[in-house]
Amino acid sequence: MDNFKLHASTEILFGKGQINQLPEVLSRYGKNVLLAYGSGSIKTFGIYDEVITLLNGFNITEFSDIEPNPHLSSVERGAQLCRDHQIDVILAVGGGSVIDCSKVVAAAAHYPGKAWDLVMDSNKITQALPLVTVLTMAGTGSEMNQWAVITNTENQMKKGTGNWPTMPKTSIVDPTYLYTLPQKQTAAGSADIFSHILENYFKKTPDAFVQDRIAEGILQTVIKYAPIAYKTPDDYSARANLAWASSLALNGLTGSGKGGSWSVHPIEHELSAYYDLTHGIGLAILTPSWMRHILNDQTVSKFTEYAINVWHLPNSVDPFKLANDGINATEYFFKSLGIPMTLHEVGIDTSKFDIMAQRSVELGKLDEAFVPLKVSDVLAILNACA
Amino acid sequence: MDNFKLHASTEILFGKGQINQLPEVLSRYGKNVLLAYGSGSIKTFGIYDEVITLLNGFNITEFSDIEPNPHLSSVERGAQLCRDHQIDVILAVGGGSVIDCSKVVAAAAHYPGKAWDLVMDSNKITQALPLVTVLTMAGTGSEMNQWAVITNTENQMKKGTGNWPTMPKTSIVDPTYLYTLPQKQTAAGSADIFSHILENYFKKTPDAFVQDRIAEGILQTVIKYAPIAYKTPDDYSARANLAWASSLALNGLTGSGKGGSWSVHPIEHELSAYYDLTHGIGLAILTPSWMRHILNDQTVSKFTEYAINVWHLPNSVDPFKLANDGINATEYFFKSLGIPMTLHEVGIDTSKFDIMAQRSVELGKLDEAFVPLKVSDVLAILNACA
Repeated sequence: MDNFKLHASTEILFGKGQINQLPEVLSRYGKNVLLAYGSGSIKTFGIYDEVITLLNGFNITEFSDIEPNPHLSSVERGAQLCRDHQIDVILAVGGGSVIDCSKVVAAAAHYPGKAWDLVMDSNKITQALPLVTVLTMAGTGSEMNQWAVITNTENQMKKGTGNWPTMPKTSIVDPTYLYTLPQKQTAAGSADIFSHILENYFKKTPDAFVQDRIAEGILQTVIKYAPIAYKTPDDYSARANLAWASSLALNGLTGSGKGGSWSVHPIEHELSAYYDLTHGIGLAILTPSWMRHILNDQTVSKFTEYAINVWHLPNSVDPFKLANDGINATEYFFKSLGIPMTLHEVGIDTSKFDIMAQRSVELGKLDEAFVPLKVSDVLAILNACA
Repeated sequence: MDNFKLHASTEILFGKGQINQLPEVLSRYGKNVLLAYGSGSIKTFGIYDEVITLLNGFNITEFSDIEPNPHLSSVERGAQLCRDHQIDVILAVGGGSVIDCSKVVAAAAHYPGKAWDLVMDSNKITQALPLVTVLTMAGTGSEMNQWAVITNTENQMKKGTGNWPTMPKTSIVDPTYLYTLPQKQTAAGSADIFSHILENYFKKTPDAFVQDRIAEGILQTVIKYAPIAYKTPDDYSARANLAWASSLALNGLTGSGKGGSWSVHPIEHELSAYYDLTHGIGLAILTPSWMRHILNDQTVSKFTEYAINVWHLPNSVDPFKLANDGINATEYFFKSLGIPMTLHEVGIDTSKFDIMAQRSVELGKLDEAFVPLKVSDVLAILNACA
């Protein structure tokens, strides 16, 4: 097991009605609140009104219209609002995009340089305004970690950043807020959880046993409950288990103690930097292709472990057959959630494969992945799911 | 899934050599350090010297001789030292007893009433001195939670307490510090981890799926690595996996979202309140008896789940056979770690069964356990392993 530091310090208030604790939570930091949200679905579904009513007595500055795959320009706009209104605490109500954007806003608010510097070099994030979140979509896990992904539309660069100060202080996770998610978002969020776990599961460190068993437990949770939430959006148990699985999938639990780079996320980031693509959908499309590409004599035992422990497939005399059965089960699972399994079905052609492959290898440090990937490898993966 | 609050805010510095971060960590709080430890094994094995050398420049007040199952009198002694020496931060170097004692010292230092009040009513713990720990024994999980168990020798009462302020700020977990543990302590610590997970696994809440899968992952870790650490004390992978499993077993991960009381710990607390018994050994002796006592038509499905998912036992047409196979596997596992399976082997006769049964039901709220236990039930469990 590798050495690690873990500080998953977010206070989680989980369950129906936890929103009522919001005034007490915010009052720990001050009266001036930046209310960050997206396109307005929180107004449609009543959460906005609930929050405004609860925040009677606070000075609210609205920071709305944060886009999916949030832009640097939104970060800059939010940071300016923080300075103009002497914001004490940021309240992000939304999914991963709203929370990610709010994290970098929190760090940029009193940073003397350019906000993009904080994205390019996470070490520059040494302080941030306190951030409180109310989750309305499960998948990114952003509510319980320090990470954020920001897109710079000027140079079409989508990059992750984050440091300990951008960890949310408190996150309110109420599974009933997820009842109104469209099926596609439920599917995409579930694929995102699944992929976060796979990225940590398929790493080089051989003896992180407890991490991998926990990973398998979270994967089994997604396999059980994603189809239920997909078909029955207001099933509390399904929403609760998926939501908690989502937070645990990326709070350091399965990755701490395992070294190296992720594999699929860096490639997907290029897809959604260039195209209007939902992150989780891109991950689901890429995952089976990536798995088939890296399956070899050295990796087959990890794939058989995955097939047996996660999919409960019967052991086979041919390890490659078992490994492929596990990969096929993964693909079938994503398909069963209505996710297309090719890039052309989501409007992506081959024209930008070269630049995307190049940048994913470079930005994602894919030479340090479970199976190191060169540009030619990424091209093969992209072509396999074209 | 039940509503919950989780705030596992301890910063974990895990791995070989992490002790070198100690000066930076302590300097966050001040110069006056209370150095808490036990009987002196940290001197025998060199950790004491390592710490003293690193703490050059700090004002160290020594608080030594904290006993196993720490006494209220030690808490009072430590709190007085904090007041006399204007302590800024407590550094606990040891296992669960030293850390538990230090938590209540931290809370009692500036509490105007009696320290025992903080044990009897955890709501009275509203502030505490910052606590940093260096772990030298894995099992209790005390390094990553707010809980402490204190024994009052005046009324022979052993009781748990703890609240958010008693959560350690930082815990240094270096698996190499566990190499020198005697076999009995390795066995007892492993049994303690196992029991923490079982207490949460066997609760009433039916749909805490992700928690139970994570629990199974941690149990499998103990099953794999406890025998290795028992036989090969300096196996890094074994010590690392056990240590991290131990922290995760009681940091809220498997218990949050599941309601009700624990079952075996309250009974064991009575054993070690009246007898000189290592906590984990008592838990191991009691667990199979408790399992057999509560196995019935209502609980059998949970036991078959346990047998299949944890012990990988083949499914059976007779669920009670499968359930009993799982219980027998549990008992055999403890035996394989050299733990005796009867109370008389550890010097406990039947003379205090009545009072112990009575107090465990009362103090442990055993009427709210997975299977509610009355005094007669506890007596039956005790007699079954007499």
